[in-house]
Amino acid sequence: MNRHQIRALLDEVRDGALTPEAAHDRLLQVLRHAPFEDLGFARVDHHRTVRQGFPEVVFGPGKSADQVAEIAERIVNGGHSLLITRTTRDVFDAVAARVAGVEFHELARTITLRGTDVHPGVGTIVVAAAGTADLPVAEEAAISAEIMGNPVDRLYDVGVAGLHRLLAEHARLTAARVLIVVAGMEGALPSVVGGLVDVPVIAVPTSVGYGTSFGGLTALLAMLNSCATGVSVVNIDNGFGAAAIASSINHLR
Amino acid sequence: MNRHQIRALLDEVRDGALTPEAAHDRLLQVLRHAPFEDLGFARVDHHRTVRQGFPEVVFGPGKSADQVAEIAERIVNGGHSLLITRTTRDVFDAVAARVAGVEFHELARTITLRGTDVHPGVGTIVVAAAGTADLPVAEEAAISAEIMGNPVDRLYDVGVAGLHRLLAEHARLTAARVLIVVAGMEGALPSVVGGLVDVPVIAVPTSVGYGTSFGGLTALLAMLNSCATGVSVVNIDNGFGAAAIASSINHLR
Amino acid sequence: MNRHQIRALLDEVRDGALTPEAAHDRLLQVLRHAPFEDLGFARVDHHRTVRQGFPEVVFGPGKSADQVAEIAERIVNGGHSLLITRTTRDVFDAVAARVAGVEFHELARTITLRGTDVHPGVGTIVVAAAGTADLPVAEEAAISAEIMGNPVDRLYDVGVAGLHRLLAEHARLTAARVLIVVAGMEGALPSVVGGLVDVPVIAVPTSVGYGTSFGGLTALLAMLNSCATGVSVVNIDNGFGAAAIASSINHLR
Amino acid sequence: MNRHQIRALLDEVRDGALTPEAAHDRLLQVLRHAPFEDLGFARVDHHRTVRQGFPEVVFGPGKSADQVAEIAERIVNGGHSLLITRTTRDVFDAVAARVAGVEFHELARTITLRGTDVHPGVGTIVVAAAGTADLPVAEEAAISAEIMGNPVDRLYDVGVAGLHRLLAEHARLTAARVLIVVAGMEGALPSVVGGLVDVPVIAVPTSVGYGTSFGGLTALLAMLNSCATGVSVVNIDNGFGAAAIASSINHLR
Amino acid sequence: MNRHQIRALLDEVRDGALTPEAAHDRLLQVLRHAPFEDLGFARVDHHRTVRQGFPEVVFGPGKSADQVAEIAERIVNGGHSLLITRTTRDVFDAVAARVAGVEFHELARTITLRGTDVHPGVGTIVVAAAGTADLPVAEEAAISAEIMGNPVDRLYDVGVAGLHRLLAEHARLTAARVLIVVAGMEGALPSVVGGLVDVPVIAVPTSVGYGTSFGGLTALLAMLNSCATGVSVVNIDNGFGAAAIASSINHLR
Amino acid sequence: MNRHQIRALLDEVRDGALTPEAAHDRLLQVLRHAPFEDLGFARVDHHRTVRQGFPEVVFGPGKSADQVAEIAERIVNGGHSLLITRTTRDVFDAVAARVAGVEFHELARTITLRGTDVHPGVGTIVVAAAGTADLPVAEEAAISAEIMGNPVDRLYDVGVAGLHRLLAEHARLTAARVLIVVAGMEGALPSVVGGLVDVPVIAVPTSVGYGTSFGGLTALLAMLNSCATGVSVVNIDNGFGAAAIASSINHLR
Amino acid sequence: MNRHQIRALLDEVRDGALTPEAAHDRLLQVLRHAPFEDLGFARVDHHRTVRQGFPEVVFGPGKSADQVAEIAERIVNGGHSLLITRTTRDVFDAVAARVAGVEFHELARTITLRGTDVHPGVGTIVVAAAGTADLPVAEEAAISAEIMGNPVDRLYDVGVAGLHRLLAEHARLTAARVLIVVAGMEGALPSVVGGLVDVPVIAVPTSVGYGTSFGGLTALLAMLNSCATGVSVVNIDNGFGAAAIASSINHLR
Amino acid sequence: MNRHQIRALLDEVRDGALTPEAAHDRLLQVLRHAPFEDLGFARVDHHRTVRQGFPEVVFGPGKSADQVAEIAERIVNGGHSLLITRTTRDVFDAVAARVAGVEFHELARTITLRGTDVHPGVGTIVVAAAGTADLPVAEEAAISAEIMGNPVDRLYDVGVAGLHRLLAEHARLTAARVLIVVAGMEGALPSVVGGLVDVPVIAVPTSVGYGTSFGGLTALLAMLNSCATGVSVVNIDNGFGAAAIASSINHLR
Repeated sequence: MNRHQIRALLDEVRDGALTPEAAHDRLLQVLRHAPFEDLGFARVDHHRTVRQGFPEVVFGPGKSADQVAEIAERIVNGGHSLLITRTTRDVFDAVAARVAGVEFHELARTITLRGTDVHPGVGTIVVAAAGTADLPVAEEAAISAEIMGNPVDRLYDVGVAGLHRLLAEHARLTAARVLIVVAGMEGALPSVVGGLVDVPVIAVPTSVGYGTSFGGLTALLAMLNSCATGVSVVNIDNGFGAAAIASSINHLR
Repeated sequence: MNRHQIRALLDEVRDGALTPEAAHDRLLQVLRHAPFEDLGFARVDHHRTVRQGFPEVVFGPGKSADQVAEIAERIVNGGHSLLITRTTRDVFDAVAARVAGVEFHELARTITLRGTDVHPGVGTIVVAAAGTADLPVAEEAAISAEIMGNPVDRLYDVGVAGLHRLLAEHARLTAARVLIVVAGMEGALPSVVGGLVDVPVIAVPTSVGYGTSFGGLTALLAMLNSCATGVSVVNIDNGFGAAAIASSINHLR
Repeated sequence: MNRHQIRALLDEVRDGALTPEAAHDRLLQVLRHAPFEDLGFARVDHHRTVRQGFPEVVFGPGKSADQVAEIAERIVNGGHSLLITRTTRDVFDAVAARVAGVEFHELARTITLRGTDVHPGVGTIVVAAAGTADLPVAEEAAISAEIMGNPVDRLYDVGVAGLHRLLAEHARLTAARVLIVVAGMEGALPSVVGGLVDVPVIAVPTSVGYGTSFGGLTALLAMLNSCATGVSVVNIDNGFGAAAIASSINHLR
Repeated sequence: MNRHQIRALLDEVRDGALTPEAAHDRLLQVLRHAPFEDLGFARVDHHRTVRQGFPEVVFGPGKSADQVAEIAERIVNGGHSLLITRTTRDVFDAVAARVAGVEFHELARTITLRGTDVHPGVGTIVVAAAGTADLPVAEEAAISAEIMGNPVDRLYDVGVAGLHRLLAEHARLTAARVLIVVAGMEGALPSVVGGLVDVPVIAVPTSVGYGTSFGGLTALLAMLNSCATGVSVVNIDNGFGAAAIASSINHLR
Repeated sequence: MNRHQIRALLDEVRDGALTPEAAHDRLLQVLRHAPFEDLGFARVDHHRTVRQGFPEVVFGPGKSADQVAEIAERIVNGGHSLLITRTTRDVFDAVAARVAGVEFHELARTITLRGTDVHPGVGTIVVAAAGTADLPVAEEAAISAEIMGNPVDRLYDVGVAGLHRLLAEHARLTAARVLIVVAGMEGALPSVVGGLVDVPVIAVPTSVGYGTSFGGLTALLAMLNSCATGVSVVNIDNGFGAAAIASSINHLR
Repeated sequence: MNRHQIRALLDEVRDGALTPEAAHDRLLQVLRHAPFEDLGFARVDHHRTVRQGFPEVVFGPGKSADQVAEIAERIVNGGHSLLITRTTRDVFDAVAARVAGVEFHELARTITLRGTDVHPGVGTIVVAAAGTADLPVAEEAAISAEIMGNPVDRLYDVGVAGLHRLLAEHARLTAARVLIVVAGMEGALPSVVGGLVDVPVIAVPTSVGYGTSFGGLTALLAMLNSCATGVSVVNIDNGFGAAAIASSINHLR
Repeated sequence: MNRHQIRALLDEVRDGALTPEAAHDRLLQVLRHAPFEDLGFARVDHHRTVRQGFPEVVFGPGKSADQVAEIAERIVNGGHSLLITRTTRDVFDAVAARVAGVEFHELARTITLRGTDVHPGVGTIVVAAAGTADLPVAEEAAISAEIMGNPVDRLYDVGVAGLHRLLAEHARLTAARVLIVVAGMEGALPSVVGGLVDVPVIAVPTSVGYGTSFGGLTALLAMLNSCATGVSVVNIDNGFGAAAIASSINHLR
Repeated sequence: MNRHQIRALLDEVRDGALTPEAAHDRLLQVLRHAPFEDLGFARVDHHRTVRQGFPEVVFGPGKSADQVAEIAERIVNGGHSLLITRTTRDVFDAVAARVAGVEFHELARTITLRGTDVHPGVGTIVVAAAGTADLPVAEEAAISAEIMGNPVDRLYDVGVAGLHRLLAEHARLTAARVLIVVAGMEGALPSVVGGLVDVPVIAVPTSVGYGTSFGGLTALLAMLNSCATGVSVVNIDNGFGAAAIASSINHLR
């Protein structure tokens, strides 16, 4: 469907010959199978916002600083917001040399640039973390959720071994529209939080721990076996993934 | 807070001395730490609907038919909807002898009785399943989602090895407000579906498979490592859990 | 050391030539390397009470009803209390035919006969269990602790997803001298309880759960990684083992 | 409850209007839900001694030297003993720059400062270790137990392959009120020691070994499956955790 | 090489034209690549004694009673000793109907018939077992070792938790030329025995245990990580395999 | 594309306006996204032969006898060959009641009916199996390969511990165009065979074994780590899968 | 068989006394048990091309640069093509110092030198890769396949989460005679590709991912459990192995 | 027993009042429970030769160069042979500074000094290794076996994928009194060797491999599941352990 056809379609809508809903459906149908930009080593997807609600996100590991910078430039040139995860200050320097206005979040290991293509979320996303060592993952989630248009309330160091610290924040927990709960070690926090709220809880196991924490596997397993309802789980240390899900929930109207 | 206090509080709201929001907050605060009924072997939670949006659900395994029937009777007497999962026809007979109107869903292995305490969900929940052998889990999810007040659209036998079967249902996929995607074996379906929609996908691995499917572990791991955004995961065969999450998402306004 | 020597030693104590402490030490030293009774298929240890504070306990699996009954008879004939774990009603019938007064505990799957060789424990042992399906293991622990001379307070169905049920019993938790905390699925209960008390917590993972509970492995791992201090762990479903440890703690003066 | 209320309560006790037990209960009840100090990245818990018998312990990994030093300063300013585990000489330098009198234990990788808030334990804690390579973990346990007020008897290089080395120390083993038994590789030492004593044995698997020792997993599994009664287990290399449990046992009266 | 050639070769030996060693070498060389008897579903190896010191042994599982009986008949007709492992009384009945003189060993689950082709071993093989439940595996080892021509000394129920039971048998342990040590649960017995003797120890883990014994895996891992030298290991429950190794060692001259 | 369009296309080919290659391409393109028959519980794929070279195969587990029979009927009515795997005699009876001429292969647990839609393979497929207990899997592979049009040469009981049995069949091994090598236990056979031939080897691990064979996992791992080139692997016990791959290789021209 | 015998044999062929097929068989039979060159630390196999279709390939890890260079020299001196995998630039320098004309492929980490002993493959091998981080493995496969004589078509960054990128290349997929499909994370790409083509698919899991990707294990398991037929699997990151299999398939006539 | 008693005992033997056997027994009984030298961090065992046939061996990891040197000095001063495994050149320098005549074996990572307390073994130990990368482990075994008094025949690079390389050495294999077979990857070599000889085979899995070799676990599992009789297994990379077992076998008379 070329731009003339798009124009014709919009004319039909204006004239009442086509309902906006029908026109919208036809537009999306086409756009969802739309082209991409081939860089040889990667295919940059310019219609991701249409299909998935947020532009393509760059996962840092396994790409050179140059590759990341080139992809970033294409995304920003496409008019999109920029989010690069699991990255370093060196990569940031390479990106900043090509793209103006990018920010580096050290603890969260992310690079962001807010574009104009992001719709605001409906409510607040609470990001709760069990311990100080979980903060890099929690911040990856928080920064990612913010760049996707969501207000974020951070609630850190509220692990279950000191239950009074968590219960003291009961009001903030129940004010959330969706929660991201981050924990390593025994991963019990989502179960406790899940029993206190009636909105979705996205549990993020972290690789924090030693010995039989097995790099976060124990926390993951605990979260998958939560006796609380309403808890779903993402991969170990996947703060971004949790944010993407929470944001897609928080954008439902 | 007794019922007189509740009445007084409502009078204040009527008179404008208290905003409904404030009154609502105070009511919930109390009710969320409210009593339960102790049967000796179990503590039936009568305020679960207030706290979590749906009454207590009975997980069948490890309880005798008599125990399940007694718990069921208390729940129904409390005026709640009834949902019993992972159960059998024998248990159904024991429950039906005490509670009128219950239904048994053979494939889903669940017992239900719809009460009046369930609010309708906002949109439709699609339950997609990869293969015929995944249907018991898919049906547990579908029946659970329905008893929680959600319209459900079932999309079965759409595994990724015959992609045309899935793509033929593209419109139904994109019509969902939230999707539950059920698959065993290599568990690839949520990744493919997650790339086609922009709403939350709850992935349910099933124990369908043999050899290195390891009772659903392979499907679970694949889902946790999905390259698609927007996919979160529940325990193996946990159709009910997926439904509870999907329903809590579908009740967000 | 023969019985004449024992007599002479006691005479020395009476005459003040030897302190009771010294005599006690010399007696124990000998007895701890003392003989046993060889049944061919088993060696019944008659000095276990001296060495370990409780007579030999019979672990049921892998022994025929006749073998268990014969061992039981030897233990009782030796003047000891009797505890048989992981057993069945059929074995009970075989034991009851040889030994008068034995009791069968169906839920706990144990056989007991209280002898006169058991000293009372110092305080109370609380046995807390997360869910109804954990009761067989919790009861194995409770019955075992009781036959070893300890008062037991049972606190069942207090899983972390309904925190108010647990917090409502705060006083009983803090009244314990030692706690046995039994949980399957995500095994979070010991972490929460461990944060509320300052006495030892023995955590018992159970095989309750499905999918990635891996027969109790997830609960075990969670307990080993507890962020609460004071929590040690025993094998999956090992209610008896937990009781033996709790009892040895509760007999310290 | 402010200090005036505390004073009033004590007056009531003096006047016989309140039993000490009741007053004690009320005091603890309040204090156990008491405030904490929020540093942004951590919440320092000043009532930990009341609730758990020993002040908050600082787990080193995942915190910067500055963060550890700041937390340490707050703890010591609060009048508490200080224990920092899994730390380094660099962190020690940062802490020593702010807190006078701290000690660094190289082998144990811990920093300590003894305060006045520690009660002496009842008896002696034996720390037994199988091999030379297990000493860092054994020393973490020993130093931790000492700072918590317990006399410690160290018994090193007594692995089961040279049984005569262990049996030569039989008297020291049986003199313990509680034992911490540290071993890597096949983890058999707690089973042998557990059969020789009638007091609690806390088994600590270490990551010492290679190949199928799997970083301590084999030792852990062996300890969980000990055929000796009275053996409970903590996480791999968790010397501090074992000390905390042993100390809580050794403080029971 | 046909039988005439064999005769010629022996003549050369008689005449001194060929040393017996050289003749022996040439005979073995040929025989080791010798024919077998093809039953369609199996290829019975009639030169196994020449190549490996004992005739082909029949492993029961996965073969029908008829198949086992037919193979057994061929082996006995070939003039060999018979050993069938992991078998049942039903199979025994089928074998006994075709082969006279076979014996069934119920506990060891083996069928034997001693032929004339077995050389006596040099010394005694001790079979030690930790607990009563390990006896089926220990007996499989003992019976197998006996049919292979070795005197066997059984030492049962000598687990490490009651060390005095083992030490009481020190003389019998040190009298062995090779030991088979059988244990489940934590699998510590071979480590202790290995430290007491200077001859080879074949460790056999058994599937005795529950929970984290993982069907014998824990015992296996412990044995592989034994801190005692001289311990090698076979598969879980592989009593026959241990006997075959012990016998090959015991036949070295 | 309807049949008139197909006719038109063929006319163009006849008239030389379209090359057969181009026409073939266009036909396949359409047919590969062609319809299927929806039975509610399954979607029968009638263009599978076009897309994948063999009609849809029915995997038995998780389907009722009626379901299998109905699917079978549709496949045969569609003019296709029939292959049902992992099935039983009961299912066979249900199928035979609806479909004339089907055969049941007891050892292979398969049902077959040869249609007219199968092209002959180019060479011979050798199916080699290590032991008698591997035959069900080997036969599933052999029967499947035959129904797909391939001549099969069976080579059974040629495990590596009796190398002479394998080397005796060297000529048959090297005569194969592709080999399927089936083995349980240590899974070494594909490595040895892979070193003797220069054509593709499809390795099939079986669940034959005990203890640390872990249901075929050990054989699978060994095959994945084969030091021989040319060996690829399928899931445990997946005889059919190996046959499908071997057949697709054997149909390459 | 010496060279005179080879000559005689060829004369027989010329004279029609022997068919070429028979002569070829006899030659191969001999050559396949032929000598090798012993370097002390390695045995260079000069008849590998005869036996397996391609000369010995040098696997880099665990060998010094000198060792690799020496082996490389012998292979090239033997007149063979050279392929060294998993190597580094340092090793390349050592090899280039001894062997003229070698090439280094940085991304693929391989060294190659094309000899005259390689036959061209029949069709094209498609190498498809899911993401940018999979390229080192994909390139190892592509370079290896090319040096073995096969045309290669590369299809990169076509992961299943953006299905339109894959479907856009449908024609290139179906043009392949055999496919190598490389993917990490959830490893779903081979299942989707396998459903679109009717030729063999060799699936290569990569170690790309984090957390529960377990270094490629998840991708491997997913591929082994593929619901698509025609997919076989090699070890994680084994690009070379996949190429060797694909090449042996592509050389079948 | 002091040295006078020993002298008296010997006099009795001289006078015929005591048989040498009886005297020998009494001497060993005492010596086997004899003292050791306590260095604080280690207890050097000076009677190990009496009890186990070879002096204490120093396992390098987890000990400082100084500690190793001090232990080495005590062992040599005690008149014993010296063997230090898993060590480095740095440690060698520290040892050489204190002990004259020690040798460093780079590939084997061992330090040795041959004393006069070693008896020669009966026959030859063959050490066979599958690949070049296995040589460090193979050499650890070979050097260890030599220092224990055994002639060693090395047979390297004889992996099963090139069977002709192994079969070419058939005579050397069958000349062994005991074999140590070292292999990584799929670990098939011991199975093949075990089928060719009738003496004990000690299998040593190595950590050579990648991906699913899991650091030697696959090779270990394959060896434990060997279909050949006579194969026992030691821990991954445990060349020394295999040598100790082989030597104890080779010293049996």
